[in-house]
Amino acid sequence: MTAVTVAPPSPNLALNQLVDQRRAEGASLVHLAFGEARLPVLPQLAEQLALGAARAAYGPVAGAESVRRAVAGYFTRRRLPTEADRVMVAPGSKPLLMALQLVIPGDVLLPQPAWNTYAPQAVYAGKKVFGVPIPTECGGVPAPGALRETIRRARATGADPRLLVLTLPDNPTGTLAPPSVIRELCALARAEDLLIISDEIYRDIVHDPGTTGFLSPAEVAPERTVVTSGLSKTLGLGGWRIGVARFPQGDTGELLRDAVLAAAGEIWSTLAGPMQQVAEYAFAEPPEIVARMRASARLHGAVARAVHRIAVEAGAACRPPTGGFYVYPDFEPLRDLLAGRKVTDSASLAGRLLDDSGIVVLAGHLLGDDPHALRFKAATSLLYGNEQQQEEALRADDPTRLPHIAGELARIAEGFARLKGAA
Amino acid sequence: MTAVTVAPPSPNLALNQLVDQRRAEGASLVHLAFGEARLPVLPQLAEQLALGAARAAYGPVAGAESVRRAVAGYFTRRRLPTEADRVMVAPGSKPLLMALQLVIPGDVLLPQPAWNTYAPQAVYAGKKVFGVPIPTECGGVPAPGALRETIRRARATGADPRLLVLTLPDNPTGTLAPPSVIRELCALARAEDLLIISDEIYRDIVHDPGTTGFLSPAEVAPERTVVTSGLSKTLGLGGWRIGVARFPQGDTGELLRDAVLAAAGEIWSTLAGPMQQVAEYAFAEPPEIVARMRASARLHGAVARAVHRIAVEAGAACRPPTGGFYVYPDFEPLRDLLAGRKVTDSASLAGRLLDDSGIVVLAGHLLGDDPHALRFKAATSLLYGNEQQQEEALRADDPTRLPHIAGELARIAEGFARLKGAA
Repeated sequence: MTAVTVAPPSPNLALNQLVDQRRAEGASLVHLAFGEARLPVLPQLAEQLALGAARAAYGPVAGAESVRRAVAGYFTRRRLPTEADRVMVAPGSKPLLMALQLVIPGDVLLPQPAWNTYAPQAVYAGKKVFGVPIPTECGGVPAPGALRETIRRARATGADPRLLVLTLPDNPTGTLAPPSVIRELCALARAEDLLIISDEIYRDIVHDPGTTGFLSPAEVAPERTVVTSGLSKTLGLGGWRIGVARFPQGDTGELLRDAVLAAAGEIWSTLAGPMQQVAEYAFAEPPEIVARMRASARLHGAVARAVHRIAVEAGAACRPPTGGFYVYPDFEPLRDLLAGRKVTDSASLAGRLLDDSGIVVLAGHLLGDDPHALRFKAATSLLYGNEQQQEEALRADDPTRLPHIAGELARIAEGFARLKGAA
Repeated sequence: MTAVTVAPPSPNLALNQLVDQRRAEGASLVHLAFGEARLPVLPQLAEQLALGAARAAYGPVAGAESVRRAVAGYFTRRRLPTEADRVMVAPGSKPLLMALQLVIPGDVLLPQPAWNTYAPQAVYAGKKVFGVPIPTECGGVPAPGALRETIRRARATGADPRLLVLTLPDNPTGTLAPPSVIRELCALARAEDLLIISDEIYRDIVHDPGTTGFLSPAEVAPERTVVTSGLSKTLGLGGWRIGVARFPQGDTGELLRDAVLAAAGEIWSTLAGPMQQVAEYAFAEPPEIVARMRASARLHGAVARAVHRIAVEAGAACRPPTGGFYVYPDFEPLRDLLAGRKVTDSASLAGRLLDDSGIVVLAGHLLGDDPHALRFKAATSLLYGNEQQQEEALRADDPTRLPHIAGELARIAEGFARLKGAA
């Protein structure tokens, strides 16, 4: 019988289904392995969805012009002047990222660790993947020196790295690359003729926008940077699948847009009409959307910082989170102690947390990180409880003191401490 | 600057945008080049969409179990016994078809002509495409003898044809392959170890189910046939993007499902939650859905037959339509006469219809057909008028006598007659 290529399922989605199953069987778990914002749907958005029912015709592949204008306005308000014809909407940013990898020639450079979808998409697109370690200070970007060296080595083996994917702020580390690093990477991209995809889906979840400066590569290297984003993270709409892309100005930008448009027409047609109506409303950023974005960034920041504190107190090294809803602890400082407990790599570390404490995390090697490292990703947005508790958390002065969140945090603290054999 | 691969845009979608533009400029066109059902959204479906707003979490990649159970019931009622775990839902059947092409190894065999998305998807998946002429009696399938010969020749050149795509009923010819041809093709697929994708998105638009027998390859070769379908055509929901796949039972089926599931997790995650709610409702086929499907099949049949009659009266050869909403006339009998008017191939034929009569059709070569042939696809579902006129058409005893449809038909008759220099 015809052989079929079976790739392993997306590890975060697979883990999510495992958690559902274990919970259905009665297990009490702290699930930190899935990047979902877990916030209630704003009633105004539900209303727009219902109003969008009439949009049942196919419409333009890139999305209706009114939607693209709203998205263009969103970017323009973020120092990225944009015309509607440089915007595409799609059922999530995943298909846009896939189409970009399909139409951009050559191989791909990824931060190591990186979101676990970039690499499999590259493989579907027939590309080689080159992981580049992240700097000490932040994730989501390769360390510039290591990037230069990786490109050199890749070319020496006959590979052709042409695409650099950045995540700002980062999933999995919950950190934002500073402007100086972005400038250095953009200069390198110019020198080495790389296209940049800047995945900015967490952009509106910078915890403290007053002190954390956001510089998009699209400001520095506008001629070669595609920006992707969406509503899944900022507005807790993962299940509604609304993504956007902003293409560069100029010849390359137009070529890229036309190529992605052609791929979109064949692979998914267009974003569903009712979702276009939602996008048109949300990207125009009426007051309640702005208020929700601020409240959720504050909430995500407070809880991510609390988990960061717990990890550090347990003896891990961990970059302080500044955006998104993740922390990425490194238990290297405890290696000798953990080795005595048969925890010697990221898989055994995640396994031990699950078995001993019912804590579900995403082991670093599933994100392309060194399997021997003692690192994992913890998504802190899954601690907000049920819908009513989520509303409370959005309003609370200090959400980490709400009983349902404080209880989860205490359990995480116990679980991390138990790694050392304590408790 | 980095070179980008630019494929031409999907010709039907591109043409659709051209038509919108020409109309905005004031042109009066008869648009027959886009496969959209053009029927009003049933209010019960709009209601389900609104109710689905709460489904904002990611959920399982394949779709919620309740949705998959409803879809399994739909297939089971059509002599295809199905369990929920052999079903996937997705944002349209296009992404499912793309994922199938990505995970199934080898090259692809297509009927010639075929729907214009299969071939570009094959190219994105790195496959070679082998077109096989359709039989005299119907489209959507290769003529079995020509298929055997094509496989032999393909293998002789080092290619590895492993996938056969069938369309039942067919787009573009509007015909349904009879059971005898399906049986012969399934036997051939077994002998040559081909997987079959049976695209049955028009299955519920068989014009006269009492006399036109539908046999799915999944009944004959259940171990190697994937069936795809969706709500775009049957319920006029193209813009809502709801597609489904049914995987074979057994080892190959499970491998295929797991592989497509893995690809889906990376490329689009899942069908949007509110659309899953709609799918759950519609695939359960409550009475008003069944009534709408019957009424629309009747309407599509009446108008397609009318256009078929016009084409034949104008001197074209044309297979009588039995399903979907297309006809595919062949003006070969008028070749000499048309040559005198500089119409010598499908491009010049479509161009002449547009320039002389404002009739927009999809030239056969855009569907993989021989460019020298004088063939085109006409989608007859675009003649139903505005939403109120569509409702009237669904209810009418003879929709072709409604003034707005009769007027369009008269214009098509004039346009086809004008090809010969008449009028």
